[in-house]
Amino acid sequence: MEWTEALLERIDKLEPAVKAWVHLDREGARRTARERAAQAAGGAVVGPLHGVPVALKDIFDVAGMPTRAGAKAFAHRQPDTDATSVARLRAAGAVILGKVTTTTFALMDPSPTGNPWNPAHTPGGSSSGSAAAVGARMAPLALGSQTVGSVLRPAAYCGVVGFKPTHGRISAAGVVPLSWSNDHVGILVRAVEDAALALQILAGPDRADPLTVSHPVDDYLAGLGGGSAPAPRIGVLRALIERAAPENAEHLTEVTRRLSAAGATLGEVVLPASFAGLHDSGQVVVRAEAAAYHAPNFPRLAEEYPPKIREALTVGQGIRAVDFLAARSHLRRFRDEMASIALRYDALLTPTAPGPAPRGLESTGDPYFCAPWSHAGMPAIALPSGLSRDGLPLSLQLVGSAFAEARLLGAAAWCESLLDFREAPRA
Amino acid sequence: MEWTEALLERIDKLEPAVKAWVHLDREGARRTARERAAQAAGGAVVGPLHGVPVALKDIFDVAGMPTRAGAKAFAHRQPDTDATSVARLRAAGAVILGKVTTTTFALMDPSPTGNPWNPAHTPGGSSSGSAAAVGARMAPLALGSQTVGSVLRPAAYCGVVGFKPTHGRISAAGVVPLSWSNDHVGILVRAVEDAALALQILAGPDRADPLTVSHPVDDYLAGLGGGSAPAPRIGVLRALIERAAPENAEHLTEVTRRLSAAGATLGEVVLPASFAGLHDSGQVVVRAEAAAYHAPNFPRLAEEYPPKIREALTVGQGIRAVDFLAARSHLRRFRDEMASIALRYDALLTPTAPGPAPRGLESTGDPYFCAPWSHAGMPAIALPSGLSRDGLPLSLQLVGSAFAEARLLGAAAWCESLLDFREAPRA
Repeated sequence: MEWTEALLERIDKLEPAVKAWVHLDREGARRTARERAAQAAGGAVVGPLHGVPVALKDIFDVAGMPTRAGAKAFAHRQPDTDATSVARLRAAGAVILGKVTTTTFALMDPSPTGNPWNPAHTPGGSSSGSAAAVGARMAPLALGSQTVGSVLRPAAYCGVVGFKPTHGRISAAGVVPLSWSNDHVGILVRAVEDAALALQILAGPDRADPLTVSHPVDDYLAGLGGGSAPAPRIGVLRALIERAAPENAEHLTEVTRRLSAAGATLGEVVLPASFAGLHDSGQVVVRAEAAAYHAPNFPRLAEEYPPKIREALTVGQGIRAVDFLAARSHLRRFRDEMASIALRYDALLTPTAPGPAPRGLESTGDPYFCAPWSHAGMPAIALPSGLSRDGLPLSLQLVGSAFAEARLLGAAAWCESLLDFREAPRA
Repeated sequence: MEWTEALLERIDKLEPAVKAWVHLDREGARRTARERAAQAAGGAVVGPLHGVPVALKDIFDVAGMPTRAGAKAFAHRQPDTDATSVARLRAAGAVILGKVTTTTFALMDPSPTGNPWNPAHTPGGSSSGSAAAVGARMAPLALGSQTVGSVLRPAAYCGVVGFKPTHGRISAAGVVPLSWSNDHVGILVRAVEDAALALQILAGPDRADPLTVSHPVDDYLAGLGGGSAPAPRIGVLRALIERAAPENAEHLTEVTRRLSAAGATLGEVVLPASFAGLHDSGQVVVRAEAAAYHAPNFPRLAEEYPPKIREALTVGQGIRAVDFLAARSHLRRFRDEMASIALRYDALLTPTAPGPAPRGLESTGDPYFCAPWSHAGMPAIALPSGLSRDGLPLSLQLVGSAFAEARLLGAAAWCESLLDFREAPRA
């Protein structure tokens, strides 16, 4: 009760600058929080998220709240059932605060949200509101989604932990799709342990999402090792670090030195041949699938779409099936080639973003460093790792083998403890 | 040894009229047959197909034999490993006689093969040689493949049992693809029991074919009930029977009366709404995937392709990704709608083909009645059910629920026993 009330107050204070919320359900959240408090007083605990306030990207269906996907009215829906992931959070005891901003249809047209560290900078996207709300300490947990770089990049820009597990690990049923073969439900939190806890609740097959798989769900909290985990084996993607902005490349090189000095075993990883052209193939698949999903409305309602999604759908409509299929098989080849590389390490280390959050709200930044792991469906986590000269967060990305989330989270917890990032935005 | 020798003699006698073979490995077959005879004399049995001669459609790789796919030299390959299905037959003790004809790339351009019941009629396609060889008693077992109607229709025309299990049940690794999301390895034999035995050997996941699934493999022979199986529940697709040629529709109506009189429980099944336009959607998916597979050669080598595959690839090259994706989701909708219908019966009954094998070798006939179950990935079996006025075989198709092959084969064995088809082509 007090937690929810405190966050509502904090939201009132910070929201005019941050603009993260599109639907704040004060009364519903207060009601649930009161109920949880009464349950707790009676000794009853609903689940591991008992009373924990959460924020949801506005492409997740929540019964009784509109789903607007950052789009105009033609695309709004008024669901009467929760997305599977939302239902699982609720069943675990969560208090749903409401919906936060997304870029339009989770592509690149920005929302008005500002970065909590400096509202003249982008929070990143497409999970802009999710990252900004957690970064501004308006909520301890938010759900987002990542098709290319939409969870980890905003997490990096907002100084929080962003995590997407293996494709198919969390149901996407009840979430507005962008490109189903690349869409991942993701988690934005402040600490690796919270990501592990959320995954424990969210992971597992779902009949309503045929892309979920019945691969066993591990004990993710136990995988963290309780502070006594052995130093991880980390494969460093040096070629990617060298493509980051100089300040960030230097920072990440210094981070790898610290990891090594603390006992991590570092190896140099060379990108496989199929990395060439991967981003283009990914764009082909994303645009074609997005165009297929929007075909009932687009191009009929083209004027209702903002410019970036409109252009993507226009291109997507024209992609040939043979090019789509060739692009998809390119992504699979990359996935297969990366699989044998990733197995040799607990995590691969790359930048999360080129540098800190860019100035201005017209662009949500560059997903270049996140895209490969989205297209390969590999689990990935972004950890805040320091501050730039301008006082904005920097971030480290760790990537794991498919369905080896426990191993990845263990390595991430070890790095997190070493990095000991304690900075917070001025509020 | 004697069996292989007797079949080689029979092939020598009938082949000039039937033209089923493209690569007859007399010496290899004799060598293996001698080895099997010696093993048997020593009390050693390699497996359930010990010494059984088999024929393989010329799109299956066999180590040391060319794979020509009914195509010109540019497309030939000389594999040094067996297709997974071929390796499994070999490991079960089979004697590989050689390769039999296929239409070019398993589409519609005919091979020179004639129907063993009357060589002026088509044997059907694309598994023309597989059906003709089993129909002419040149081999007791042949492998074929079905993307639209390429196993069950030629089985019907040649008076044999044709069976394709659920999509993903048998590995297609090492088989030249036409449209991987519709391609099924199929079995051509003379009796349902032989189909069950072959499936037992062939079924199961394969790391080399990512479309195979790890669904448990049942005991298919036990599922036949050993002659004392209860009478099956059969759903009759009356609307499809009415679309068959009059003689065949009358025949199948009479067959349903006999099944009912013998104790089968018959129900009338109405096709779901998604049946409308299904064939067109199937063609979109098949042509687009075929065009993607042939893209390295087509249209560069268009002149090397015969007219029907050339037209299909030309159309396939021009299909838009959005139309491909819409067609694929149409096929899935049909699969899902059929799944709940099929679960209520042991088998659904439809024609296998419009009527008996058409006269002439320029067309391989109409796959209309087989296509829906290929696109839905449901298991289906064709049973010879009588002769037409012209003395050509007629056939009954039974369709089952996904992965319920044991149930389907049990129903088929019951029907087979009642139909008691004993006719054979004059040799």
